[in-house]
Order: sequence, then C-alpha cells, then structure tokens
Amino acid sequence: MANQALLKRVYRDSLGLLTDLYELTMAYAYWKNGLADREAVFQLFFRKHPFKGSYAICAGIQTVIEYIENFHFDSEDLTYLEGLKTPKGTPLFERAFLDYLQGLSLNLDIDAMQEGTLVFPYEPLIRVKGPIIEAQIIESALLNIVNFQTLIATKASRVCFAAQGDHIVEFGLRRAQGVDGAIAASRAAYIGGCHSTSHVLAGKLFGIPVMGTHAHSWVMTFEKEKEAFVKFARTFPESSIFLIDTYDTVTGVEQAIAVAKELEKEEIPLIAVRLDSGDLYKLSNIVRDKLDAAGLTDTKIMATNELTEQIIADLKHQGAKITLWGVGTNLVTAKDQPALDGVYKLSAVADEKGAWHYRLKISDQVIKTTNPGISQVRRYFDKGKAVADMLYDVEMGSGTEVIHHVDFASKVQVNEDWDYEDLLVPMLRKGKSVYSHPSIVEMRENTYAELERFDPSIRRFLNPGQFFSGIERKLFDRKLKMIDEIQKR
Amino acid sequence: MANQALLKRVYRDSLGLLTDLYELTMAYAYWKNGLADREAVFQLFFRKHPFKGSYAICAGIQTVIEYIENFHFDSEDLTYLEGLKTPKGTPLFERAFLDYLQGLSLNLDIDAMQEGTLVFPYEPLIRVKGPIIEAQIIESALLNIVNFQTLIATKASRVCFAAQGDHIVEFGLRRAQGVDGAIAASRAAYIGGCHSTSHVLAGKLFGIPVMGTHAHSWVMTFEKEKEAFVKFARTFPESSIFLIDTYDTVTGVEQAIAVAKELEKEEIPLIAVRLDSGDLYKLSNIVRDKLDAAGLTDTKIMATNELTEQIIADLKHQGAKITLWGVGTNLVTAKDQPALDGVYKLSAVADEKGAWHYRLKISDQVIKTTNPGISQVRRYFDKGKAVADMLYDVEMGSGTEVIHHVDFASKVQVNEDWDYEDLLVPMLRKGKSVYSHPSIVEMRENTYAELERFDPSIRRFLNPGQFFSGIERKLFDRKLKMIDEIQKR
Repeated sequence: MANQALLKRVYRDSLGLLTDLYELTMAYAYWKNGLADREAVFQLFFRKHPFKGSYAICAGIQTVIEYIENFHFDSEDLTYLEGLKTPKGTPLFERAFLDYLQGLSLNLDIDAMQEGTLVFPYEPLIRVKGPIIEAQIIESALLNIVNFQTLIATKASRVCFAAQGDHIVEFGLRRAQGVDGAIAASRAAYIGGCHSTSHVLAGKLFGIPVMGTHAHSWVMTFEKEKEAFVKFARTFPESSIFLIDTYDTVTGVEQAIAVAKELEKEEIPLIAVRLDSGDLYKLSNIVRDKLDAAGLTDTKIMATNELTEQIIADLKHQGAKITLWGVGTNLVTAKDQPALDGVYKLSAVADEKGAWHYRLKISDQVIKTTNPGISQVRRYFDKGKAVADMLYDVEMGSGTEVIHHVDFASKVQVNEDWDYEDLLVPMLRKGKSVYSHPSIVEMRENTYAELERFDPSIRRFLNPGQFFSGIERKLFDRKLKMIDEIQKR
Repeated sequence: MANQALLKRVYRDSLGLLTDLYELTMAYAYWKNGLADREAVFQLFFRKHPFKGSYAICAGIQTVIEYIENFHFDSEDLTYLEGLKTPKGTPLFERAFLDYLQGLSLNLDIDAMQEGTLVFPYEPLIRVKGPIIEAQIIESALLNIVNFQTLIATKASRVCFAAQGDHIVEFGLRRAQGVDGAIAASRAAYIGGCHSTSHVLAGKLFGIPVMGTHAHSWVMTFEKEKEAFVKFARTFPESSIFLIDTYDTVTGVEQAIAVAKELEKEEIPLIAVRLDSGDLYKLSNIVRDKLDAAGLTDTKIMATNELTEQIIADLKHQGAKITLWGVGTNLVTAKDQPALDGVYKLSAVADEKGAWHYRLKISDQVIKTTNPGISQVRRYFDKGKAVADMLYDVEMGSGTEVIHHVDFASKVQVNEDWDYEDLLVPMLRKGKSVYSHPSIVEMRENTYAELERFDPSIRRFLNPGQFFSGIERKLFDRKLKMIDEIQKR
C-alpha cells in the first residue's frame, strides 16, 4: 500500500481539467491551425533557490509521471467545456475539438530528475518532448505539483539540518493550504528528510511513519491534570507522551513525574513530555533537570509551537534539552516563502519537416532569458564530491567549458579525471513508463546521500556557499546569437 | 453541477484519515476510558486578523459540513490503523476500537457562520457540540479547511478593494500549494470577491466563471509574433486577448494593433492586450495611447506578473491604465502570510449526569486564554451599520455590557434601539442537515453585502480602523473567576 501513486488513490478520475483555461485555448488554437502534432520541447525550471538558500531538493516527480500516464478527459469534463461561452454567448470550443480531446491520451517523452536530487537554478527538473498540444496542456499541473513538493522537500531538508539529526515530526495538516496542501506536503517533507508525520492519511498513502500524542483538550476533559496523564498512560502503556503545558509547564512536569513514578510498578514508561509554549530553552532545561532528578533520564523532551529551522538551530546552539521536534505550519506552508518560482518554457519547436528550431523568451534581464534547445544536466564529481553542473544541449553535445548561469565571467573547465552523471533520466517514452520509481524511503535516503556529495557550506542558513552551475559554451554562444537576432528584428 | 460539494466530487471516499494521529490516540483514550459519549463543546476561532488587516471573510463552511456528513472510515482505513505499532511492536489500537470506528458516523450539532460573513478574532466560526470523541476527531480537518479558505477569501477581498471594482482573475494554480491548494483557493477567492478564475477544474466544480488567453509559448511557436496573433484571433474571433511582451512590449502592441486593424474587416475585435513584465504604470500608459490613437478605445489592458493588493492599489493610485488584473501566487498562497492561526478549543464538557462544566486553557498572556462555555456571537447594528459584536454564552444568556476581547478597559453598552443578528447558524443537528447552503454566487454577494454594513475604515491597508468585538459581561466575569481558580490549584 505504501508509496502507491498519490493522485489515483486520493482523487477521483479525472484531473484533465486541473489546468488553466489558457492551456485549453492554446490547445484549441494549435488544433485549429493544424499544429497540434508539431513536435516541441518544454523545460520546467526555477530561477532562484527558495529561502535564500543555495540548493533545492527535487520532489513531486512520481506524482507528475502518474498524472501524465493517467491524463484524460471524461465525458463530464467535456460537457463542461462544451458549455463554456465567449462574451457574445457563442460556444468557446467547437464540438470537433472536444471530440479530439475525448480521444486524447499523452504520448510524451519525459526526462526528469529523480526525487531527492539536489537541483540548482536554470536546470530543468523535467524536460517534456512531444506533440506541442500535449506538452502545452500539462503545464499548469506540472508546475503545481513540482513547485510545491520541491519547495517543501527543500524546507524539510533545512529543518533537519537545523536539528542536527534529532527526530522531526511534520504536523502541518491543520494549517496547510487545503487537503492536498497537507497530503503533498507530508510526502515532500518526508522525502526532504523528516522522520515522521502526524498526518494519518499521508501515513497510509505513502507509508510514512506516523506519530501523535494528545492535545490540551484531553487534559481539560478531566478535573485534574494528573488524572488525564494516568488515563492516557494506561491507554498507551508503551508509547505515551504527555503534553505538560495546559495550565503551567513546571507544575505539569511535576504531575507527569508523579504519574510516571506511580506507573513504574506497572512497567509503563514515560516516553517523552511535550512543551508547546513558553521559552523552550529555559523550560527544557528545567524539565530536564526535574526528569533527571527523578531518575527519568530516558524520558525525552519534545517541543512544538511555531518552530522554524532558525528557531531550532538557535535553540540547539543555546543548549536546549530537546531531541524531538514537531514542525507544522512553517514547514508545510514554507511560511517565509510559500511558493517556488518554477516556470515551464518552450525551448524548441519542429517545423513541418521535423527540423528543430530553438526558441527562447527574452527579457530586459539576460538572466531571465530562457535557455533554448533540448537540455540535459551533467553533474561532475571530483573524488566523489560534486564540483560543477553543466547544462548542455543533447543535439549539440557536451563540451569542456561551462559558463556560469548568472555571472558570465565565471567559468569552469571540465577536468578529464572527473566522473559525471546526467541528471535527467528517461521516465516516459511515448507516454509509456521506462522508469521504476524507488520507494519513498529510498527517495529520502537519496536526499541524504545526495547531500553528502556536496560541500556542506551550501546548507548554511546565512551566506551559504555557492555551487557552480552553468551552461556549456556552445549552447551559451548560440543563446547569445539568438538574443541578438531577436533584438535586431 | 455548479457549487456542488467539493470533497465528494474531487476526492475518493473516505477522508476519515485526514486527521492528525493524536486525534485518533485521544479518541482511543476516550473510548477506552468510557468517555466516548461524554458531551463536549469545541469552538474554532482565530486570534489575529491576517495581513495586518481588521477583518476576515469566513469561508470553507460548506466544505466542512460536507466533510462531517460524509465522515466515515472504510475497511482499507481500518486495515491501515490495525497495522500501526507502538515502539515495542505491539498494536497501537485494539481491534474492538477499530470495530467501533468502523461503525462510527457523526451525530454532532454544528453551528457556524455563513460563508461571506465578516468575522473578528476570538469569535467562533464553528461551534461543535456532541460526543467528545466525535467532536475531537474532526479537529484537524476542520482547521485545515476553514483556516485556508478563510485566509484566501480575506486576501481576495483585499485584492478586490485595491482594484476598485476592476475585474480580478485568479490564476494561482501553477504555484498553489498542491492540487487542493489550488481548488480550494479558487473557491475561496471567488467567495471573497474575485470575478473569475483561470482554473478550469474549479470552474467546473463550483461554477466559477473561467477566463484565459495564451502564453508566451504560443507566440514563440511561430517565427513572427504577428502570425501568432492573427492565428489566435481567428481561432477566437470573439474573445481574443494578446499577450504582447514575449519579445518587447512596445513592438508587441504595435503588432497587435496592426493585426486588429487587419481583422477589422472580418469583424474580429481585439478584446484586450496583456502585459506580463516591466513597469506596468509606464507600459500601460504607452499601450493605452497607442491603442487609442489607432481607434481601439474599447480594447482593454490586462496586467499580470506577481501582483499583490499593494501593487495594484499603488498602480491605480498612480494612474495605470489597467482595468483587468490577473492575480496568482500572491493571492492563492497568501504569500505575505500563508497561514491563518485558527485553533479549535474545548470550551465545555458534561459530567456523567449531563451537567456542563466549562473549560478554558490558560496561558501566560490572558488574551491567549480561551473562552469557556457554549458561545454565540451577536452582531449589533445601528441604522443598518454594524457597531459591535458580543460573544455571549447561550446558557447564561446575552447581557447589555460588552468588554473588549483584548483591551479590557474598553466597553460598549448595548443600546435598546440596535438591531442584532446571531451569527452562528444551526447547520447540523445530530449530524443531519438543517441548513441549505446558498450558491457560490450568493456567497460572493453575501461578502459584498456584508462589507457594506461595516465602516469602510476597516478595509484600509495601513492602520485600518478597528471594529469593536468583545465578551458579554457575565461570561467575562466567569472567565476571570475560572482563571483565578486554575492559578490557585
């Protein structure tokens, strides 16, 4: 059951309409002008790392692949589209187009990064190749899925770094952005490095370990806090964690200790106590001292309450006696930057004879200008450590000189001794799977393994180190030439 | 089809596991200790308006009601729960409890605010009354749904205020937080005041008007921008909007005008041009002048590109010639504050004999202490204008003196001439519907009508005016007495 496909298990058929209307109006215009089957290449990438960081963790790919494999419009979808009208009241789409959509399934070639891969700006996470109408129509859904999961996996990785190996429970469901804002976030947070989730549906869907205790309401149900603790501990004799701040944390831990002592003869251990308010540094030290003095040295301290990676890092630095952290809202909404700026851009289109014409979208800033062609990302390693990424064009081939994506004066010469890997992996060919997704546990392991291959400086929160990522020289020259030509038109 | 229930149409059965594990561990503990059917009251409220504003728009209620009506666990859910283990490897829940869950349907009494109602801190948006196990188990889902939709409806209301009646298209799908982060956001944004969405699935599910044009990729498919415009206009002879900044906005509008002139004889009007980059004030004025000079005075100017309510307000203030706004990421993720701090707190619990015992959760700050009892919110009107809200206890009855929720020195005496409305409306009794949800169009109209009843100062972005919202005197006194008692324990 674990790690089965998200979309099919959560959503009803079909998600064909999970799209912006302009994808459908463009699809209609391609179809109407006889261009529907023209081959095209689109690339999905982002321009800036989230959270002022220096890396991102690719996530959401399996969800995307499943979306593409199952893409279709059902008859209810078509009835809806048939009812759409122009401002003048005439049908927006003609019936023959809707018939075409009814028979449409996707025959695309998809190459994508594996989940857990570290990714840098301007590098395609997904490359889509195939009939332009098909490649266009999936834009909105791909961006929705990959932008969000990559954002949250990256955030989770930061939270885990702050906690220095401590156990992180993700518990964002209650303030996540919608139902799937929670489901997809739990998935991505686990891939990014979290240890468990409070979210039971995510646990079931993906096989993520679930964790949970009790709320203030449990304590408040009883006249006495102590009674609440005793009853909870007897219900969960092997896994009870007490929330001790319903009325007062210090009194709360004293009650918890009294209960733990009382239940020792029943061999019911107190696994942990949870703090949900107040100064977590101060309180965790007081609570630790009291627990230790009572001989409860194995009882852990868990903390919750609007935690962020910065707060956790700061508390660790100061010596808070916490080894179990619950992170909710700030993790699943990525509160300090709740969206990744991923885009999906046309980079090549074939003519009637099938010859490729490269495309770019220019901008006032050259760094916002897109990369043309059919890209692949090659990652070079020197003695096992990643040293540079090269974006190259698969038609033009890889070279030996890499120009930095933003700072064109900065270059790297590829050393013959370096190993390399091409990061975009074939996943679909003509819409059929040619890739076997690893389990979610393996994806998470992949994240940790990937991080080991990079200089640790990129994980620093303040002034993180920069990893070199650039464009292969031939592609770079061609790009500049194309910009020139467009500007001269 | 329009405005039918979200959850049933989007998600598969069942959403019983859309919950934090601790709701289930508490449920187990209630059940195990013979307390499952003990009557309790929980109240869902927030403590602070989002976006440094002075009001919020209630949304998500219909979704919540449907969730409760359809609540159940299916056999796959129970199989999953049966497999959960304690750290020692023993089953977390005993089989008899899972059998109990299998038969569980909710028999709760739900009173809630109607969608589109203006709501203020500490006022329950939802009051839940019934067996404590049922009232507890729905906490996470209720918070997930209501926190997010209320947040986005409020944000949309702000964006609409900034645009002074201009048409607002919500187009956040591509960077929304997950699939439902987009679906639920489109719903809430429309209730909050937006005019249309780009999101086709939301259009279909809720009957929201959909709108869309074309992307840069359409233009880039062709060798010449002009060819792209001509082909698009002939495809949509009654509704074409051209995106004019693929290469250069000024050249783009000149191309658009040339095409519009050429197509005049075919009676194909140019509805609007869209700007997606650059200085929108400057460009909109240049574009307006060029359109007007060409006699295209009816052609509108649409703007997109990371818009916020502040940017729109500022551009309107400066005289940008834009009357159609597309707002995406900042609207659907509420980028400046991506979560509402709504909480769900136990406020009363019955004893074995059915007598109510009021409950509150104290905190170092009195304003974070919860309100006890079984609350209702009464809104007073003086000559049609809202003047004060009173939180009162339905058992103790309403009074005439209201103490401000935060500033206890500030009071209001209820005037006998004032009209009033009680805002919490019965929606479910013993789990059965006693309320008929208005259409989403009516909900949106409700939002606009509600705003008319309040002083316009509350909508200001900087230093907004404050609406008086407080606690009825008898309830206030009782609350202080309870705090005293707890502190003396």
